[in-house]
Amino acid sequence: MAAQQVFASIITIGDELLIGQTIDTNSAYMAQELNKIGIWVHRRVAVGDVWEDIWKSLEEEGRVSQVVLITGGLGPTADDITKPLLCQYFEGKLMINEEALFNVKNIFQNILKRPLLERNLKQAEVPDVCTVIQNKRGTAPGMWFEKNERIFISMPGVPHEMKGMMIQTVLPELKDRFALPPIIHRTLLTAGIGESFLAERINDFETTLPSNIKLAYLPNYGMVKLRLTARGRSEKLMAELESEFDMLKEKVQDVMVVDEDLTMQQVVGRILASRHKTMGTAESCTGGYVAHLVTSVPGSSVYYKGSVISYANELKHEILGVDSKIIDQYGAVSKETASQMVKGALRVLKTDYALVTTGIMGPDGGTAEKPVGTVWIGVGNAGKTETHHFHFRFDRQRNTELTATNALNILRKFVLQDH
Amino acid sequence: MAAQQVFASIITIGDELLIGQTIDTNSAYMAQELNKIGIWVHRRVAVGDVWEDIWKSLEEEGRVSQVVLITGGLGPTADDITKPLLCQYFEGKLMINEEALFNVKNIFQNILKRPLLERNLKQAEVPDVCTVIQNKRGTAPGMWFEKNERIFISMPGVPHEMKGMMIQTVLPELKDRFALPPIIHRTLLTAGIGESFLAERINDFETTLPSNIKLAYLPNYGMVKLRLTARGRSEKLMAELESEFDMLKEKVQDVMVVDEDLTMQQVVGRILASRHKTMGTAESCTGGYVAHLVTSVPGSSVYYKGSVISYANELKHEILGVDSKIIDQYGAVSKETASQMVKGALRVLKTDYALVTTGIMGPDGGTAEKPVGTVWIGVGNAGKTETHHFHFRFDRQRNTELTATNALNILRKFVLQDH
Repeated sequence: MAAQQVFASIITIGDELLIGQTIDTNSAYMAQELNKIGIWVHRRVAVGDVWEDIWKSLEEEGRVSQVVLITGGLGPTADDITKPLLCQYFEGKLMINEEALFNVKNIFQNILKRPLLERNLKQAEVPDVCTVIQNKRGTAPGMWFEKNERIFISMPGVPHEMKGMMIQTVLPELKDRFALPPIIHRTLLTAGIGESFLAERINDFETTLPSNIKLAYLPNYGMVKLRLTARGRSEKLMAELESEFDMLKEKVQDVMVVDEDLTMQQVVGRILASRHKTMGTAESCTGGYVAHLVTSVPGSSVYYKGSVISYANELKHEILGVDSKIIDQYGAVSKETASQMVKGALRVLKTDYALVTTGIMGPDGGTAEKPVGTVWIGVGNAGKTETHHFHFRFDRQRNTELTATNALNILRKFVLQDH
Repeated sequence: MAAQQVFASIITIGDELLIGQTIDTNSAYMAQELNKIGIWVHRRVAVGDVWEDIWKSLEEEGRVSQVVLITGGLGPTADDITKPLLCQYFEGKLMINEEALFNVKNIFQNILKRPLLERNLKQAEVPDVCTVIQNKRGTAPGMWFEKNERIFISMPGVPHEMKGMMIQTVLPELKDRFALPPIIHRTLLTAGIGESFLAERINDFETTLPSNIKLAYLPNYGMVKLRLTARGRSEKLMAELESEFDMLKEKVQDVMVVDEDLTMQQVVGRILASRHKTMGTAESCTGGYVAHLVTSVPGSSVYYKGSVISYANELKHEILGVDSKIIDQYGAVSKETASQMVKGALRVLKTDYALVTTGIMGPDGGTAEKPVGTVWIGVGNAGKTETHHFHFRFDRQRNTELTATNALNILRKFVLQDH
């Protein structure tokens, strides 16, 4: 087989996407996975539970893409019209699929241990013109249709059910079907430099990039990812990509966090684990968000001990031992309090490093002297304590995210400088 | 003006959406806000930084919608082609806009306190055929175009910049322009009952709903939202919607968390605040996620004191006072440990209520006896402690989210039953 360029579209179905009640995370996952096997997603469309809109999107996307992935609209409730529509679009008849039926019965009898309902049995019905994709994680089967040399794959909208089908069936089958030219990304993460300053700095590099390698900027909460992308499988192209990536790394060395597509918390975790060191946190304004980020990494219990979330000032005093006079004199959001929180956290949590936050996230609580967005971040070990001052200008959520990102970056630098 | 039905499309631009490196949260926000003023979003499309794809989507969406909102592709870097494209599509010429220029200069000189770069000055250039939407939160101005009685509005992809423009300019202008029939939603939240069982229970209700009122199921992490939607402004329709909503509430009374579109943590916060009670948490497996949810609600410091995240067992003993023998004998993930964590949290945090979690979130750490997904949740006050056992069957992230949701629901019920 000669390598061919395969384009995909993603259609997500459901009114909840159009009234904004649900954020679509499925599309990002599907796009990522398709990308890895060399299929380029060039359109994503979301439509409501409306017959004509779904029908039209099947026609349109089938015109521009060889592969159309569809999620949503396969639940057991009456607002789901996707299956009858697919049946009519591909000119089939609904029939019970025995394996899907066995699966539905098994889930209800052995896992949920609940009586089976008529509407659940109907989930085992599929158009007789499709290949069924069995759902090992739920009751709605997936469906694989082919029409005019186009592949249409319908999956449930529940993320972990869709993911199961992608991994077990959809991705392997698509790989088998096409001779796909790989799409290769090389990504690095920077922190503490704005997009325009970064762009200014790598301007020369960017203008001399060969035409088959593309640079993208992905800004996110005080960090910017830089990504180089090449499509193809030649050794020459690979070598070229690596050499361009090396050049890019050199240009941003001082602000680079890592030269892989990793999160800040993954990087911090790797550094601590490799040095056999432990960390703990004491959070005020971030209210557990730093701990959540750190513990979202599997295996984090190796280096993460725990946190004291001292949202109330009396807990800063009682658990962390911050001097009440310090809080009275300088306020809970101050260099002095942050510094004492570090010492308290080290003592109470018995870790090698402690990272602390105290600030005003908004919308309320700001004063003329300490407006919303005022943040102190502290970091330390047995020998040394550092504090850093920030002033973010955003809403509660963004201020919290920026504080957490900056805190983790401060810890990262502190650990790296610690001999 | 007679009321008219206005349809909108949302176009998001950027390769990062198509390779799955970014999750699109802008579309959900825009859809929500358009909905509130009575504009129905019937399509959302994401395209890459590709001239033909963007051009085509403008043509297509302009055919089916009176209003087209566009985000992304307006940054200061070279991979952004949106502005030149819009300029050509609407047959204009790029010119410096003085107010936008003043804004860019002001941000660099007075807020960022950094030197202004040539590429930032270029951000003040806009096509001379658009009305400029000033950006009070960033350097890229928005643009309002009109063509063939269609409105096209281009905004930056940075969420809080886009939101600022929506609130200050886009939504008020659209409201002025059209006589919009309101879209009214009535939403309630249930917890602890699956979608199919809920559907079975309200089957009769659903089949007798008048055709101008629509029911939707929105399942999310152990909770299901039920939403009734009516479009129009007649008193009769409003009365009908209220009466149907009352009937629906009656049918799900025992599993209903709240009869508004609120999150579980907002509901818990309201109950505690209204009773002048306080809560604290002690988290092991959820690693700060419960605390994060609780503190994501503005004003939560009124009722939330803090948390001890005892990720390491020694902290369960040292800070919370869990008997080491109990941990040795029953394990950290056990009814006995959860129960002692409640007592320890109440003592250390000095709150009216304590909520605790201990479990195995995966992918590692499971055993035959206690597989991944085993969770104990504890809740208590000075007089009483309760523990609840769960076994979730999902991945780390989903297990964490389900644990947090169930924990908050358990606390909610405990507080409501407490006299």
